[in-house]
Amino acid sequence: MDFNIIRCGRAVLHVTNLEKSKAFYEALGFIETESDSENVFFRGLEEHNHHSIWLKKKDEPALEVMSYKVYSDTDLDVLANHFETEGTEVKWLEKGTQKALGRAFRIQDTSGLPIEFYAEMKTVDRLLQRYDLYKGAKVQRIDHFNCAVTDVQKSYDYYINELGFACSEYTIDDKDKIWAAWLHRKPSVHDVAFMNGVGPRLHHIGFWLKDPMSLIDGCDVLASMGFAPHIERGPGRHGLSNAFFLYLRDPDGHRIELYNGDYLTSDPDFKPIKWDLDDPLRQTFWGHEAPDSWFDEATTVLNVYTNERMETSEPKLKKKKPQFII
Amino acid sequence: MDFNIIRCGRAVLHVTNLEKSKAFYEALGFIETESDSENVFFRGLEEHNHHSIWLKKKDEPALEVMSYKVYSDTDLDVLANHFETEGTEVKWLEKGTQKALGRAFRIQDTSGLPIEFYAEMKTVDRLLQRYDLYKGAKVQRIDHFNCAVTDVQKSYDYYINELGFACSEYTIDDKDKIWAAWLHRKPSVHDVAFMNGVGPRLHHIGFWLKDPMSLIDGCDVLASMGFAPHIERGPGRHGLSNAFFLYLRDPDGHRIELYNGDYLTSDPDFKPIKWDLDDPLRQTFWGHEAPDSWFDEATTVLNVYTNERMETSEPKLKKKKPQFII
Amino acid sequence: MDFNIIRCGRAVLHVTNLEKSKAFYEALGFIETESDSENVFFRGLEEHNHHSIWLKKKDEPALEVMSYKVYSDTDLDVLANHFETEGTEVKWLEKGTQKALGRAFRIQDTSGLPIEFYAEMKTVDRLLQRYDLYKGAKVQRIDHFNCAVTDVQKSYDYYINELGFACSEYTIDDKDKIWAAWLHRKPSVHDVAFMNGVGPRLHHIGFWLKDPMSLIDGCDVLASMGFAPHIERGPGRHGLSNAFFLYLRDPDGHRIELYNGDYLTSDPDFKPIKWDLDDPLRQTFWGHEAPDSWFDEATTVLNVYTNERMETSEPKLKKKKPQFII
Amino acid sequence: MDFNIIRCGRAVLHVTNLEKSKAFYEALGFIETESDSENVFFRGLEEHNHHSIWLKKKDEPALEVMSYKVYSDTDLDVLANHFETEGTEVKWLEKGTQKALGRAFRIQDTSGLPIEFYAEMKTVDRLLQRYDLYKGAKVQRIDHFNCAVTDVQKSYDYYINELGFACSEYTIDDKDKIWAAWLHRKPSVHDVAFMNGVGPRLHHIGFWLKDPMSLIDGCDVLASMGFAPHIERGPGRHGLSNAFFLYLRDPDGHRIELYNGDYLTSDPDFKPIKWDLDDPLRQTFWGHEAPDSWFDEATTVLNVYTNERMETSEPKLKKKKPQFII
Repeated sequence: MDFNIIRCGRAVLHVTNLEKSKAFYEALGFIETESDSENVFFRGLEEHNHHSIWLKKKDEPALEVMSYKVYSDTDLDVLANHFETEGTEVKWLEKGTQKALGRAFRIQDTSGLPIEFYAEMKTVDRLLQRYDLYKGAKVQRIDHFNCAVTDVQKSYDYYINELGFACSEYTIDDKDKIWAAWLHRKPSVHDVAFMNGVGPRLHHIGFWLKDPMSLIDGCDVLASMGFAPHIERGPGRHGLSNAFFLYLRDPDGHRIELYNGDYLTSDPDFKPIKWDLDDPLRQTFWGHEAPDSWFDEATTVLNVYTNERMETSEPKLKKKKPQFII
Repeated sequence: MDFNIIRCGRAVLHVTNLEKSKAFYEALGFIETESDSENVFFRGLEEHNHHSIWLKKKDEPALEVMSYKVYSDTDLDVLANHFETEGTEVKWLEKGTQKALGRAFRIQDTSGLPIEFYAEMKTVDRLLQRYDLYKGAKVQRIDHFNCAVTDVQKSYDYYINELGFACSEYTIDDKDKIWAAWLHRKPSVHDVAFMNGVGPRLHHIGFWLKDPMSLIDGCDVLASMGFAPHIERGPGRHGLSNAFFLYLRDPDGHRIELYNGDYLTSDPDFKPIKWDLDDPLRQTFWGHEAPDSWFDEATTVLNVYTNERMETSEPKLKKKKPQFII
Repeated sequence: MDFNIIRCGRAVLHVTNLEKSKAFYEALGFIETESDSENVFFRGLEEHNHHSIWLKKKDEPALEVMSYKVYSDTDLDVLANHFETEGTEVKWLEKGTQKALGRAFRIQDTSGLPIEFYAEMKTVDRLLQRYDLYKGAKVQRIDHFNCAVTDVQKSYDYYINELGFACSEYTIDDKDKIWAAWLHRKPSVHDVAFMNGVGPRLHHIGFWLKDPMSLIDGCDVLASMGFAPHIERGPGRHGLSNAFFLYLRDPDGHRIELYNGDYLTSDPDFKPIKWDLDDPLRQTFWGHEAPDSWFDEATTVLNVYTNERMETSEPKLKKKKPQFII
Repeated sequence: MDFNIIRCGRAVLHVTNLEKSKAFYEALGFIETESDSENVFFRGLEEHNHHSIWLKKKDEPALEVMSYKVYSDTDLDVLANHFETEGTEVKWLEKGTQKALGRAFRIQDTSGLPIEFYAEMKTVDRLLQRYDLYKGAKVQRIDHFNCAVTDVQKSYDYYINELGFACSEYTIDDKDKIWAAWLHRKPSVHDVAFMNGVGPRLHHIGFWLKDPMSLIDGCDVLASMGFAPHIERGPGRHGLSNAFFLYLRDPDGHRIELYNGDYLTSDPDFKPIKWDLDDPLRQTFWGHEAPDSWFDEATTVLNVYTNERMETSEPKLKKKKPQFII
């Protein structure tokens, strides 16, 4: 490919109560880069770019777009051309349209997800060694998007064959169909994962923590501030990805994963790890069965061309809650 | 009082398959002091006494007895006399009767629990600084017994007024009745806790870990050895006691708590902390609702005089599963 | 004995610049209970008493007194009588004389150290579960005093035989003389330690941390706030006491130890652990040789009767810096 | 560039006593893939390739070669051609010559360091989730090489301009000359660092740990096995790279760094961080001044063409031990 997608970059979330959302993300340890009465821009402690999460005040909660950073402005043009050539409408947002961002374009991807690409975001102070500002779970950086799609095989094929992603791990059902797949551009377990489900929807946004104790500290701080009901699942370890995880719901129900325990996936001879859907160690290496909400609920995504809410469809594979530890 | 109970000391558990039990407790990081075809004696890494848990091969799982260590042989006699004076039968086991133990006596306590007192147990090497032997959750020492009794107020009164325990924390129901109480002799949160329930039964035995990461490590090691289904609840933090906890079921269903996060309770001006039964932060400061098994299942205890299984009764207060985070 | 010393309770330190000291102790994670232009009262996160460290603005740095808490007002009288009977002058400070403290008395102990006893200190909110207030090293509670004395054997004998302390660990030199001893009332490794040296002086005050990561976090936060030069030694682990330690110097040079890794010393059959002075694992189980300042420098103590600075003498045993790992 | 160096891959070390070296690396938590009387091959817990460190029994300790993995066999040919074109002799080792390795070639690099490139190494079981095998510091994977060279600017220019490395952080002296530079291919802080010094020599090989507690655990296990004297420096945190570090010397004096605390360097707009040589936070964000040995001692490297020991020269910049915390 003649373009280089570097990594997942940021998400734009619609939230209904900016003050409540702000309090929640600050408790997690995000750094507010800037805000006004309609917007808050947050970044993690090691991030040198302006934001990795942009909260917009709106009447209804939704994911407006999830954005990937590409290597250069040239990559952006080549990539836009790639989409146009295949017949996908490309919606450009020129520099200045979005706070802190260079020119960018948006598309609706093969499964209906709202995707954006950009090469440039304003550089700000990196606070990695400002340990005096560390709070809550001490969120370091954005790590990945996790999406529910109706046809995982189709998304898998497109992201690997057309966009140059690699697969680190995947799950198959009892008929050898791909149920879920973890795909990456940066050499970690993933920049994006696709799971079989009612879609297109955003299941969660994952953020990287520096160590397991930061996740425990995060739980304690959240609970002491009254946010315990926002903890949906965990702490526990996924077999798949080896992640030490915690799932939270923000005040609008957007799901945030706090994440530690990745590994290096730089090598072309690294063979994707295959899991059976009903392997009890897959979803929860240890810890408890996920609650129903974790399987059933996800964030509505928007149409990048119309700004309307995307309708969802039933997944191609029979939707079921996998069996875990019995 | 003219006797000094120092601390909870050891438990004698009946298990049906010694090999399976041995594998489980070794995975947790217990040190085997000695064993034969009918018995295994385990201790924690900092324990200088022969054992804190004695597994006996039997046809049926049960708690034979839970034992407290007293300061001296004299205390033992004074304490035995105390029981006899009040009309409680005292069953002496002379030195040599039990492996590694000096003379001891057993009673059935006010709620029907099998209790033993001893002053002397054989001293063995303390392995605190043999970090090369640390495994699994690196269990350090026995911390407490937790028991289901039908009348918590009665047990509370007896242990505090007659045996010299102090209360660190307790729970009341909506009619201000004591639902549960945490009592201690050593200046930690507890040596024994009583919870309202079908009793007399042993709910769990708590063991102390050196830090929170040992609990996470323990989960990972257990899961990698196939013991993930033995994890019943956690990791999470109790509001009550501030414990970072993990509950496990051994191969016979005996419940073991791994525990970190205590505090010092040495001061007479420390006021017991009162919790409402339905305070959502009480049981689970963060983490998930306990599974039903955690509320319903517990270990049968034996009659110290007949060795028969104690019959259980319904608790005095209406048994209910408290409401947690909704 | 007819009195019960519960534990080490607090220290009163003279500091020359209250603002600088306040900034330092706050960075460590102490909670300020109250302060005025001449005083700051700090406590740890789990402490329910008003303070464990009292900073007084004075022209010269010094330890005014180190204080032990006794069980009851009656113990206080019995203990005062004990000292008077042996010919030690007892200086009473009636309730109201000292902020938040009940009646107390001070003595100069057998080695010339300024000691105080009290039974009552005002109760304040315990912040153990206010994790949102945790900062720096998240100091939990006062743990011990460490003092340089000229005759360790004499202090050892007095504290054990006259005051009811027990010994957990001790160090002997090559002639089997006691070089240092760790003594406790609460069942931890120590409430006070005596080391052979130019004395009487206060070597350091030890504070308890909840886990090893709090110590690492403390280092990072201190460094990010410009306090790195205040780190004198560590992190490392002592063989003796098994402590995971960090030694800091406050703005006046008073030495603070952050400490995790204790064990339970409740049992009368626990045999004090003997270390050879030149055992390379004793002082530093791992980590580096202590700097000279750690051996040479300590806090001047005051005369409780005259408020003048105590003159120091050379120690009875030949002072030397022990050999560690070479 | 038309070739893609993925990452640092492995080092081949000459050791004089295979049994002693084996015991040391096993204590650190390395997994032995295979061994015979002359060789031991070790890998980290997450590594799916045969080894990242190869110990060869020889009469004298030395670094035989440090090896980088390239993306494909084609890259290997293009890269070899690059070296030949510039006049650097390329020494091929065909597949089968070296255990588990495909074809590879070696060169002496611009500063005299013995470098190897390969595309293929035998795949073996990845033990990431075999937590039951975790020991010591639980070494996860190789992270970087650190080398002393006489002209850092020259190495910097060559690796960046000719080999496609990027710089994450660097140090300048008081005349703005590059004193040291951290360069990477994988998006971490480094695959190789060059420091001004007597060279060419290998200063250390860095291995990645999964979290800070693994480093503390490693210290405890090493000390309990008698390896405390092998700890040369740390634990502490570097300002530069933000690494939580521990430096060890193996039985032949080869230096191993255990390392945690990296960050993501994937973005082209990430500006290399510049440090002044005498910034007290640079080398040691907190912790103690490095011992002289850390500055003066390093591993002799071999000539890849003759197998003889490379002679060393004085560095171009005045060698000095930087000033740290005073």
